[in-house]
Amino acid sequence: MNGPPFDDIAGQSSGYPLDALIADLGDIPVETSPAVVRRRSRDFFWYSPILNEELSGKSADLIATPRTEADVVRIAGACARHRVPLTVRGGGTGNYGQAVPLAGGVLLDITELSAIDWVKPGIVRVGAGAKINQLDAELALKGWELRMHPSTKRTATIGGFVAGGSGGIGSINYGGLREPGNVIAARIVTLEETPRVIELRGEAAQRINHAYGTNGIITALEMPLAPLWRWIDVVVAFDDFLDAVAFGHRIALADGVVKKVLAPVTWPLPSYFGALRPHCPDGRHLLLAMVAEPSLESFKDLLAGRGTITLETPTDDSPGKVPLYEYTWNHTTLQVLKTDRSVTYLQCLYPHDRLLEKAAQMRSLFPDEALQHFEFIRFNGNVTASGLPVVRFSTAERLNEIIRLHEDHDVGIANPHVYTIEDGSRYKKAEADQLGFKYEADPFGLLNPGKMRSFAARTN
Amino acid sequence: MNGPPFDDIAGQSSGYPLDALIADLGDIPVETSPAVVRRRSRDFFWYSPILNEELSGKSADLIATPRTEADVVRIAGACARHRVPLTVRGGGTGNYGQAVPLAGGVLLDITELSAIDWVKPGIVRVGAGAKINQLDAELALKGWELRMHPSTKRTATIGGFVAGGSGGIGSINYGGLREPGNVIAARIVTLEETPRVIELRGEAAQRINHAYGTNGIITALEMPLAPLWRWIDVVVAFDDFLDAVAFGHRIALADGVVKKVLAPVTWPLPSYFGALRPHCPDGRHLLLAMVAEPSLESFKDLLAGRGTITLETPTDDSPGKVPLYEYTWNHTTLQVLKTDRSVTYLQCLYPHDRLLEKAAQMRSLFPDEALQHFEFIRFNGNVTASGLPVVRFSTAERLNEIIRLHEDHDVGIANPHVYTIEDGSRYKKAEADQLGFKYEADPFGLLNPGKMRSFAARTN
Repeated sequence: MNGPPFDDIAGQSSGYPLDALIADLGDIPVETSPAVVRRRSRDFFWYSPILNEELSGKSADLIATPRTEADVVRIAGACARHRVPLTVRGGGTGNYGQAVPLAGGVLLDITELSAIDWVKPGIVRVGAGAKINQLDAELALKGWELRMHPSTKRTATIGGFVAGGSGGIGSINYGGLREPGNVIAARIVTLEETPRVIELRGEAAQRINHAYGTNGIITALEMPLAPLWRWIDVVVAFDDFLDAVAFGHRIALADGVVKKVLAPVTWPLPSYFGALRPHCPDGRHLLLAMVAEPSLESFKDLLAGRGTITLETPTDDSPGKVPLYEYTWNHTTLQVLKTDRSVTYLQCLYPHDRLLEKAAQMRSLFPDEALQHFEFIRFNGNVTASGLPVVRFSTAERLNEIIRLHEDHDVGIANPHVYTIEDGSRYKKAEADQLGFKYEADPFGLLNPGKMRSFAARTN
Repeated sequence: MNGPPFDDIAGQSSGYPLDALIADLGDIPVETSPAVVRRRSRDFFWYSPILNEELSGKSADLIATPRTEADVVRIAGACARHRVPLTVRGGGTGNYGQAVPLAGGVLLDITELSAIDWVKPGIVRVGAGAKINQLDAELALKGWELRMHPSTKRTATIGGFVAGGSGGIGSINYGGLREPGNVIAARIVTLEETPRVIELRGEAAQRINHAYGTNGIITALEMPLAPLWRWIDVVVAFDDFLDAVAFGHRIALADGVVKKVLAPVTWPLPSYFGALRPHCPDGRHLLLAMVAEPSLESFKDLLAGRGTITLETPTDDSPGKVPLYEYTWNHTTLQVLKTDRSVTYLQCLYPHDRLLEKAAQMRSLFPDEALQHFEFIRFNGNVTASGLPVVRFSTAERLNEIIRLHEDHDVGIANPHVYTIEDGSRYKKAEADQLGFKYEADPFGLLNPGKMRSFAARTN
């Protein structure tokens, strides 16, 4: 294969025939202002001080904004013919540098591909660039909602979520995107001189899930839906963090109680919680929960006074509001980073059969250095917890040691301080041949070269 | 306490002052024809040859049919004053003799208490005598359905299900009735000279769940609802029974695939399957499944050709139709009993963490004597299987040995060959003080005396 010189992916990309490329794009909107392009070549990788160092200089050369799938085909074909890298960007809310072009070239902004093709009972077909929040608002009119969304729902796109995310609010019911049935189909455009449009259905669609957009440009998705509930944001305060974990676990296991998120959060994390701060008593640990209104009585019944409810209000993520889920998952880290730039985080998966024991063990290993919060999820059909501890950063060596200590104690880590799929994904990946599909959909290795490490290794 | 002479509960009940009782009932419909009363004093206890011997002669003296809760209060007060036993009957579909009066007296037919009080999003409040099938038909008009129902849905009442059942179709999603949140509230009338009407909410409502109507007369229930799906009955044929179990388990664990029942059934049980027989290939083992229409593609995707789909049709339980769920749970036994009266059954609970291993083990222990079928359920938040093997009956000793061998291998048994709550319930019971509540709601011990053994023991 005849690829561009990616050996030095940190170098300048001025070698690309950009003028010829732009000429081939016709009337497709193109942005070349360096300030704008540099700004939009970033995502939330800066949560990691290590990635912040490694990725902060990376930028595309231009942004192309397709209005239709035909535009995508035209851009993909031009990039293939001119051997110019292409990196897909949705809302730019990833933390692994998913939207950061490692080797310059074109940044493909998919946010205009946002139309809903159709909604059937239990399924929506929608453009990959649809904002999740807007999509859910449309679905609500018909009595449906997405099964799960990231904490970045208000800015993320559905395509970016499927390409770069793994699960989130709702995963306590349906597991992650990697579980069978959670992505019904994906339509992708290949990066070839004459691009093809391929429909991947069922398990085949898992090839592009969590592949960071490196093995095909997703233009549309068929996503399964959940029946809409009226959700109530509930905050419960506990004296002991492990009581918050145990109660959250109890509710997570209570199949008769309908919920969407359950996140125990250790003090002092709530001291950083901006608008929620008045509902966070000093020194107390929280359980943040979204509970379906008709299950609220059962929720309180099980609580039985062991904690104090400090907030109970319908979930509202309309403009100007801060829904409770924006204090969970990696938004917890963001809330702290707003005032303290010295922290970072990890992504943990706890073993389902020793959850409380391991939570206590990790807490005692890093009492102040890794501030715990968990998000209960289903994983392979079992209730367990994801953990995204907020870590006080000292050195890369210590961070790696913390990772190793977790793993030594059977707590899985998806390392958010690396930028390749292979190094970071681990347990998040589905059992699908993402690499094999890249050879089919991106034979020149132009989709953000360097991001799927194992592919680059074979072509260099 | 001054109770009637129940020491000889097998004896005649002619000692009761029935004329005085009837006089106190005013215009409440009363049936005294011995043939009718005897026929309606039976339920499906005859699935057990042991219970068939023990219970077949039992009968009430009369049937009273309240039209309102006020009628129930009047009947309960009269029974208390005259010290006449009272046994509540719904659809009479139980298998533990739940509706069989052990000491004669009044059979209380609750089927007229069938009105729906209201339907709110996610909750219905309804009279205890409502037929489940009719209730679900009403709920469907508003986009809801009950979370679970027994295989006897077309004849059972909601009150009978809560008082005498434990779970069923839908329990793969919500667990059994004993799980928190699955019975929201129960309204009961006490058996006292001046009866009280008590509202039990939340965990308190568990006191009357699976108590066989012995600690209060349920007049109304608040039940949680599930969003309505369009269900598809699917039959898959496998060469190997354990493959059917393994695939069922895979789907049970797949949180992204929406289903309502998953029942692997060993050959030759399908040879007895009446209307379904044309879809049951000779010598092959089945998985009977109800799958939500939008999840059907994912279901087939996971099947990946390992089994053959022989039926795929929308669930239809309207009159004249036989829905697929009438071949699952204890309807499997019934299908066999229609042509072979020599069989009986057991009720097993498999350990969730060794499910496939134990299924294989029990199969090898009783290859022809206990014909297996499983129903996957959630239990305490874990996916596991209930099993209701159809057992070729020889002697009571051998039956008890089979029970013991299951228990010795960590397969739990709820013994369906005993008629007291205490002996039969075991894992089905909630952690609620049913006995304590009986002292409050039935101080004279008149609610089917002998059925709650531990109460009788304290008063005699």
